[in-house]
Amino acid sequence: MKTFALKGNLLYTAGPSRLESFQDHYLVCEDGHVAGIFDTLPARYAGIAVEDSSGALIVPGMTDLHVHAPQYAFRGLGMDMELLDWLRAYTFPEESRYGDMVYAEKAYGVFVDDLKHSTATRACIFATIHPDTTLLLMRMLEKTGLVTKVGKVNMDANSPDDYVETTADSLAATVAWIRQSLSAFRYVSPILTPRFVPSCSAALMAGLGRLQGEYGLPVQSHLSENPGEVDWVKALFPDSTCYGDVYDRFGLFGSGGPTVMAHCVYSSDAEIKLLRERGVFVAHCPQSNVNLSSGIAPVRKYLENGLSVGLGSDIAGGYSLSGFRAVADAVSVSRLYWRLVDDGCKPLTLPEAFYLATKGGGAFFGKVGSFEAGYEFDALVLDDTLWPSLRPLAPEKRLERLVYLGDDRCIRQKYVQGRKIFG
Amino acid sequence: MKTFALKGNLLYTAGPSRLESFQDHYLVCEDGHVAGIFDTLPARYAGIAVEDSSGALIVPGMTDLHVHAPQYAFRGLGMDMELLDWLRAYTFPEESRYGDMVYAEKAYGVFVDDLKHSTATRACIFATIHPDTTLLLMRMLEKTGLVTKVGKVNMDANSPDDYVETTADSLAATVAWIRQSLSAFRYVSPILTPRFVPSCSAALMAGLGRLQGEYGLPVQSHLSENPGEVDWVKALFPDSTCYGDVYDRFGLFGSGGPTVMAHCVYSSDAEIKLLRERGVFVAHCPQSNVNLSSGIAPVRKYLENGLSVGLGSDIAGGYSLSGFRAVADAVSVSRLYWRLVDDGCKPLTLPEAFYLATKGGGAFFGKVGSFEAGYEFDALVLDDTLWPSLRPLAPEKRLERLVYLGDDRCIRQKYVQGRKIFG
Repeated sequence: MKTFALKGNLLYTAGPSRLESFQDHYLVCEDGHVAGIFDTLPARYAGIAVEDSSGALIVPGMTDLHVHAPQYAFRGLGMDMELLDWLRAYTFPEESRYGDMVYAEKAYGVFVDDLKHSTATRACIFATIHPDTTLLLMRMLEKTGLVTKVGKVNMDANSPDDYVETTADSLAATVAWIRQSLSAFRYVSPILTPRFVPSCSAALMAGLGRLQGEYGLPVQSHLSENPGEVDWVKALFPDSTCYGDVYDRFGLFGSGGPTVMAHCVYSSDAEIKLLRERGVFVAHCPQSNVNLSSGIAPVRKYLENGLSVGLGSDIAGGYSLSGFRAVADAVSVSRLYWRLVDDGCKPLTLPEAFYLATKGGGAFFGKVGSFEAGYEFDALVLDDTLWPSLRPLAPEKRLERLVYLGDDRCIRQKYVQGRKIFG
Repeated sequence: MKTFALKGNLLYTAGPSRLESFQDHYLVCEDGHVAGIFDTLPARYAGIAVEDSSGALIVPGMTDLHVHAPQYAFRGLGMDMELLDWLRAYTFPEESRYGDMVYAEKAYGVFVDDLKHSTATRACIFATIHPDTTLLLMRMLEKTGLVTKVGKVNMDANSPDDYVETTADSLAATVAWIRQSLSAFRYVSPILTPRFVPSCSAALMAGLGRLQGEYGLPVQSHLSENPGEVDWVKALFPDSTCYGDVYDRFGLFGSGGPTVMAHCVYSSDAEIKLLRERGVFVAHCPQSNVNLSSGIAPVRKYLENGLSVGLGSDIAGGYSLSGFRAVADAVSVSRLYWRLVDDGCKPLTLPEAFYLATKGGGAFFGKVGSFEAGYEFDALVLDDTLWPSLRPLAPEKRLERLVYLGDDRCIRQKYVQGRKIFG
């Protein structure tokens, strides 16, 4: 892969506390990785291609740590219920349609195209229980050049008659799907995806735990999203010490491989401890947690406890794929948490929330989400000329404004691992 | 004015409980008012002009009940403080620039153009303390055809040295401004605008109360937005029964004319009673209340207590002029209020929040914000074709999706009092 440079106002967060800013500098890409940041190009880079976006903002690509591809078709609709009713009324009926290849191709086509043009360069994606259309989704995603982890969902309990598997079928289909997908793609890989504890029998979770060991796969699921759900899990597994402990007993909580759990709105101290000990990532999904009246996850507390945290759109509990919106929402709900719940939990700053969207969630994919040397070259070139400013604004201020006012119109170019995705 | 009709999917809320929906009907405008809704045009309307937007959604224009024009220049910036610090750090320095006609014309030009293309057909607008540029803003707004109430701000206490008036100057400038603006415009009218209690001396408020009596003007101000502000008002007027009682003592709380108070996040039972007795409107500004960490106003409680409530963008405590966003945010924060503060306060439904944005706030302007016969003909023709749907959606569902996903790109045409504003 060729060496090249982007030139513009580079902004990134090496840590959560502040934005690093390099005005009209060169960001050099070698072999898909960041080689360095330079105010003038060193002699060794003489003659390399330079995309000159002087004046524009260039930031690391964002990671959507939690998104349901089949729910994209009803985003912005039916957000008048809490989680468990919402699953039954809207989500399961929609997901059950994805047994149909024709329908899935049409619906996933819209999702994949919008994801390609979104802020996300990486994503952890739930499909449905159907292995054939999960593979279809993976093939479609592969063509975008984004790096994604995609899961065939497992559900064998407490599920509708027309959207459920037997334990044996679920495991057999999962094995077949893993074998078909594990080495089939360059940019897309499988991730084990037990939907959540209530929809998985102990036998299914045990089987998935064995598959994780065998194939070394990562895991994604849901954790402590809603009070009714948390109570239900406790009733199903009365001797568990916390919701996360149930996954952990079956080897699905970070002991066997990288694991990400969405939500964590109601994680107890015991669960926080387990999340830290197992290195499990938290996918914070602020918009979804508001829409489904779940509550607010205490992200400040998680950061202070050393947890790994990123942001998720949680389509279609959330309605927006935009990482800008996720950053803004993360800041917003943290302010309300401070005001209404615990004034010991300081609101997130904009750089902190931006860090979650980039390096925080990117870490689930390795050295991703920063412009430090050695990081994979994921970048967004951003255009904020939609909003005239009456005076010059520092790049940090322009980024703040873009987070609040921006949408996909502002993304001029997108790079993943040095590949230009569009623009 | 000529009689004409719009044809399309008509949606409005006669009351807060539900959306009325008329698919591909005619909405007839006579003399700037709604004459009726018809599935086929009656014989008496034979030959009138028909704008055929069959398939599109047509909804009443929205009212932005609280917006600061001079703050538009820094929207999306500097939202890392609470109210009183934010005023000192960002707001007062920006507003003080509006003594300069050249600067004001440039800055107000951006605001006025964006307001023209926003969801708002009506707005209650704060300018600054400067009468000349307040008149300039009014002249600029007049050209848009929107119906607006604009206030020269009064501030003679607890304000920065370079952004304050003497009591006498403030009153004299206000009288001169009222005389210059009262009959100068067709669509723009003056509204008395004491900034808020802390920045107004008793003598100033008493003088403004007399002016209200003399000129019969409406009033706009701020009320019970932030705990620190509420405490300050109590310290300034220790014998007041509530914050609103201070305005009331000076005849600035609905006793003399229509009055709208922004925020009401911390209104006591005594204040709620006074708001109801005086018929004072509440401008609910959910986005601003989040951004400035103010909290969440208990709108459900206000509706149950029979208060008049509308929505405000509160630029630049809020960053979005969009009424769609205000509706979505009103629903969102009401869910968090239910979850985190008081589960006796049911979340707002989407039709309820839509009602606030249209007929609720529109009532401050008279019979505005509905398609009932006799209402002023304010309408938005909306385009939701940006988002393909895999199956037909009822108009109510399309509106819900548009509220969550939409922006100014979705407004195809706008009408105010029967005048086409654009499209």
